[in-house]
Parts: sequence; structure tokens; C-alpha cells
Amino acid sequence: MKKKISKAVISRLPRYYRYLSDLMEENVDRISSNDLAKRMKVTASQIRQDLNNFGGFGQQGYGYNVGHLHAEIGKLLGIHTHINVVIIGAGHLGQALANYQNFEKRGFIIRALFDVDPAVIGKKIRNSEVYSLKDLEKYLSSHPVDIATLTLPKERAAEVVPRLLACGIRAIWNFAHIDLPVGDDVLVENVHLSESLMQLSYRMLADKEEKERLAGKTGD
Amino acid sequence: MKKKISKAVISRLPRYYRYLSDLMEENVDRISSNDLAKRMKVTASQIRQDLNNFGGFGQQGYGYNVGHLHAEIGKLLGIHTHINVVIIGAGHLGQALANYQNFEKRGFIIRALFDVDPAVIGKKIRNSEVYSLKDLEKYLSSHPVDIATLTLPKERAAEVVPRLLACGIRAIWNFAHIDLPVGDDVLVENVHLSESLMQLSYRMLADKEEKERLAGKTGD
Repeated sequence: MKKKISKAVISRLPRYYRYLSDLMEENVDRISSNDLAKRMKVTASQIRQDLNNFGGFGQQGYGYNVGHLHAEIGKLLGIHTHINVVIIGAGHLGQALANYQNFEKRGFIIRALFDVDPAVIGKKIRNSEVYSLKDLEKYLSSHPVDIATLTLPKERAAEVVPRLLACGIRAIWNFAHIDLPVGDDVLVENVHLSESLMQLSYRMLADKEEKERLAGKTGD
Repeated sequence: MKKKISKAVISRLPRYYRYLSDLMEENVDRISSNDLAKRMKVTASQIRQDLNNFGGFGQQGYGYNVGHLHAEIGKLLGIHTHINVVIIGAGHLGQALANYQNFEKRGFIIRALFDVDPAVIGKKIRNSEVYSLKDLEKYLSSHPVDIATLTLPKERAAEVVPRLLACGIRAIWNFAHIDLPVGDDVLVENVHLSESLMQLSYRMLADKEEKERLAGKTGD
């Protein structure tokens, strides 16, 4: 039974999960909210508040049981249930994602890739085959798929989305540089790489100007 | 001269830039805040407020000059100045990024890749060579580099960061699953792919439970 949890808390869960995974690798069995806070560079009270949303897994004076907390947050994140993923667009990025072993560790199984390029159709990327995009409907009608990943040019992404929706796909991991034309009943998580890089360069420039301004002042 | 602009506005600039690029491709010369708002699915007043931060490029009753606004936001984002980027980690993801032509269109030039794997050292990825990670300091001492991209396992990322900082790198585009141990004087933009995927699966599960809850209620 999950109660309504704020988006800010949800967005922090994967980070908790990552730190707890690290602690498990280090064979740490339990940790206080203070020690966890120090590692994560947040306040202990934020940790306690966040984890209270889930009934609170800690005990006064004992701290958190790392393995238990890891498993519980994993469950909340849908890890350890297998989540079936397809990748539409088997170019460099699509292939890189299919080759990424960390997804599998977290329960995300890349089942198939799709492309229009005869040069890649039929190829095997790690454990997954690249199918012709023509066969998308045929594949989706006979295989359970939870998430469709879009790693294809924006024009093609716009074309393929209605086809995915018609096949019942309701979750899209979108790398195409486009805001997808979907309704509220479809979950979309965007990864816009160029935009992330542009934010970095914006901050670089702003920093530089600020420094020049300060240097100018000092020179007065 | 740039005044202090909120992080929320900055985070929206790349999206404005993308829509304006699309308009230019469609040969649209000017657009009203209302029409732009409709396309971007935001309110016209938000658009006017956001763009007012930059002196406001619009004119009453005329709308925005698309080319001018595109150029101005591009300047703010540091596009059209060449920004020199290196990629540390020439695995699948690093190579995919080096192969991505869109970065170049936005002024980000991938100058070189670095890796420890003899199988990739010396290879050419699009226009960039893969160097041995041993030669990082040598390369950085003789080439201007603005941004270092980290596409390598987290243990190696933690090792390489102090070396980058010692060479004067102050902006890092981080794909490694680790919060980098850097001070406030270093700009970091994180792209944590697994965490993005986990947020999607969390929302999927929450949605499913909500639907089951509602279905249960109706059944009463």
C-alpha cells in the first residue's frame, strides 16, 4: 500500500538506493541517519523525514538496517521485479544502452531493439536482437513490454509514438529531442543530453562573467 | 552583462532554444508569445516572464523575432562559441557520445577520448582519437579543454577527478554513478541513467497500485 509521496522524495530514492548498494558492497550492516547524512552530504533530518514516508525503517539508537532498507527501497523502485524494456533506434546510443550491464542488475531487461537500417537489423547487441521497425506491432503483440526507450531522431520519434500507444505501451524513456505528444495517462521520463550539456555551458559562462565582474571591481 | 537568473529559468532555456531551432527550420520568422506558448504547452505569461529576464526580446503587437531570439538565447547558452570537450571512458556510452553529431551543431566539440583499454586506445571515433588515460595530463597541458565528460565506472571516476582538477578542469559532465568529490568551484552536471529509469519504474508501479486501489473501490 503506497501513500501519495511527493515528487521531490521520489526523485531522491534512487540516490538512497545507490548509497545503500555501496554500503552493502562494503559489508556495512547498519548505519545511523547521521552517518548516512554525512556520506550523502544532506541533513540527517532530511533522511529521517524522507524515509518516514515509507513507514520509517530505522530504530531509535540502532540506526538503519542497510540490507532491509536497500530491499525495501528496491521494492518501491520496482527493482527485483523484472521490467521488460525495448529500445527503438539501434544507433550508437541505443546500442550503448543495450550494452549497459547495470540496468540488468537493477531488474531492467532489454528484450529487443528496433531500427530501420538494414545494416543493423538482425544484429545481436549483447543478449538482444535488432528487429526491423516494421515488425514493432508484431513483436509487441506477442511479448510483454513495460517500457519503450526512444533513441532515434525526433522526426521518427514523433511517428513511432502513436504506434507504441496503440500497442498499449504506457511508459516511455525518451532520449529524442522532442516533447512527446502524449496524454496524461502515459508516463514519460526525458533524458535530453544536449540540454544537459547546454546547462553546464551556461553555468560556465555565467561563472566566468561573474569572476570578470569581481576582478573588474577589485581593479577599481 | 548577465544578472542573477533563477535556476528554474536557466533550466528552461535549452527548451526555448530547441523550439526556436524548430521554428527556424520551418522558416517561421516571428511568433507571438501566445503561439509559442501553445506549441510549448506552457502559459504565455510564463514565456513573457522568462524572456523578460534577458531584457525581453519581444515587441508589443509584433511578437518575437525568431532568428534574433534564437541567436540571443544561443549566446546565453554559450552556443556558437566553441566549447572543447573530452570524454574519459571510451566504452559504449563514451563512443556513442563521441559519435553524436548534434553536440557539434551546438558548438560542443569532442576533442579527444581517454581509456585504459589497449583495444580502443589509438582508435578514431568520428573525428576524435582515443588516447591512453596515462597521457591525460600531457594532453590537458597542451590543449584547451572546457568540459570533461566522465563515462567510466564509478571507482575509476573517483580516481580521475583529482587529476582533472589538478589540470585546471572546472566543469564536469558526469555519467558515472557517483556524487563527485568536488568543491563549490567545480561545476558538475549529472546524468544518472539508471536513476532516471528507476524513477520511471517507480511511477509505473505507483500508477498501477493507484489503479488497483480505484478498481477495488468501484468493486465495493
